[in-house]
Amino acid sequence: MDRNLNGWFTEMSPMWPGQATSLKVKEILLHKKSKFQDIKIFESTDYGRVLLLDGIIQATERDEAAYQEMITFLPLNSHPNPEKVLVVGGGDGGVLREMAKHPKVKEIYHCEIDEEVIAACKEFIPSMACGFDNPNIKSFTGDGAAFLENTEEKFDIIITDASDPVSGRRRCRNRTPANTLFNDEYYGKMKAKLRPGGILCCQGENMWLHSELISHLMETCRKEYPVVDYAYTCVPTYPGGQIGFILCSLNKELNNIY
Amino acid sequence: MDRNLNGWFTEMSPMWPGQATSLKVKEILLHKKSKFQDIKIFESTDYGRVLLLDGIIQATERDEAAYQEMITFLPLNSHPNPEKVLVVGGGDGGVLREMAKHPKVKEIYHCEIDEEVIAACKEFIPSMACGFDNPNIKSFTGDGAAFLENTEEKFDIIITDASDPVSGRRRCRNRTPANTLFNDEYYGKMKAKLRPGGILCCQGENMWLHSELISHLMETCRKEYPVVDYAYTCVPTYPGGQIGFILCSLNKELNNIY
Repeated sequence: MDRNLNGWFTEMSPMWPGQATSLKVKEILLHKKSKFQDIKIFESTDYGRVLLLDGIIQATERDEAAYQEMITFLPLNSHPNPEKVLVVGGGDGGVLREMAKHPKVKEIYHCEIDEEVIAACKEFIPSMACGFDNPNIKSFTGDGAAFLENTEEKFDIIITDASDPVSGRRRCRNRTPANTLFNDEYYGKMKAKLRPGGILCCQGENMWLHSELISHLMETCRKEYPVVDYAYTCVPTYPGGQIGFILCSLNKELNNIY
Repeated sequence: MDRNLNGWFTEMSPMWPGQATSLKVKEILLHKKSKFQDIKIFESTDYGRVLLLDGIIQATERDEAAYQEMITFLPLNSHPNPEKVLVVGGGDGGVLREMAKHPKVKEIYHCEIDEEVIAACKEFIPSMACGFDNPNIKSFTGDGAAFLENTEEKFDIIITDASDPVSGRRRCRNRTPANTLFNDEYYGKMKAKLRPGGILCCQGENMWLHSELISHLMETCRKEYPVVDYAYTCVPTYPGGQIGFILCSLNKELNNIY
């Protein structure tokens, strides 16, 4: 059964033990270590350019739209007037690109911890990083949880486009810079910065692989928000081919199927 | 980027170039060549027992229910009285297991080309092969297309639970025994053996990887059936993590969204 995958990138993580996804590499375009994480971009044979953070696939040119569109338009299209929005994470620019398409969005705030991710995507994956071209974006650099703690702004929509909380780089449970975005405190901080009727949408992991994390976050959210729901989309290069979103709304009139 | 996946099974196929799925192997339980194909069953570390035909993952104990339940109950629950049903393929027994749960099903016909797949699953994956324990099943051995050509029976439901039409074993487009189940003639043969209001449901591949095959089959079907639709489910060990179903109905009252 053994196979030498020379010339391929293989993704493994303690978050999905015993399974791995591999993509064939045409050319490595960038490999650097930022203050926060390992950043790699390669040209694949069949999925276009691929962004890796700490050894985990964040986006490929071929399938990123499925993720970016869903995490953006699930909350935006559930709100009658999403004028003021915040994106935490999303350093590739894809969510910002989608946001700009919504006719009611007027002010976009963006907080990304790692400026070098933004720079790397601007250089190598302009089809996503074009999202930063929008002059209406107010950009902040730093930890998203700290930003929410300190800002005096309030938002109609908060989107948390985070990487996984655990690194795939070593065979131990190393925390990633996104670790602060997967706990109860963070969901509480978001609530404090939502306008009346506000909605948040957070990267919510895979229902086959992380059902315990999803259940825990949803139970926590139900104590704080009148409407809590889980949605998903199919992204073939994500582990298990599926990724979910945790959606919470302060508008209790929104349809709540639970 | 190179990685030696020793102790893992890695699935590659010309049907999904440039990407691969790997599962960690605990123990190989069976490896034999039947008259039709290469059959392998192994115990994985995280997905239970895994059935491979010609090097392609057919089912794992952990996630097979998502596939078996969907291919079975999409058509059965769309029919008011699915008394007489046919399963083509499905040598693992999982669809037969699900069929037996429907209270209106009275007669089950089953046609599988490779008796050695059935025998292998009976020995090593009884949680699926228990489907064969049902005394109401009328079993036939042979090519499904030939069976449909020759039988005088007509059915309320025909389910085609086929493997892929192309082998993953070598780096060329070798046909599998399921090759006869992915062409226009086969869909015509099924129509001839449906009762009035009958429904068929066929393994319909992955929308990210095989959109051309899916489009072609659906266009062909629309010439023959008043209602044609595509459904899907998420199965993490299938390529791209998603697999579809082509559904055709002779009952034009069934909701047709196209």
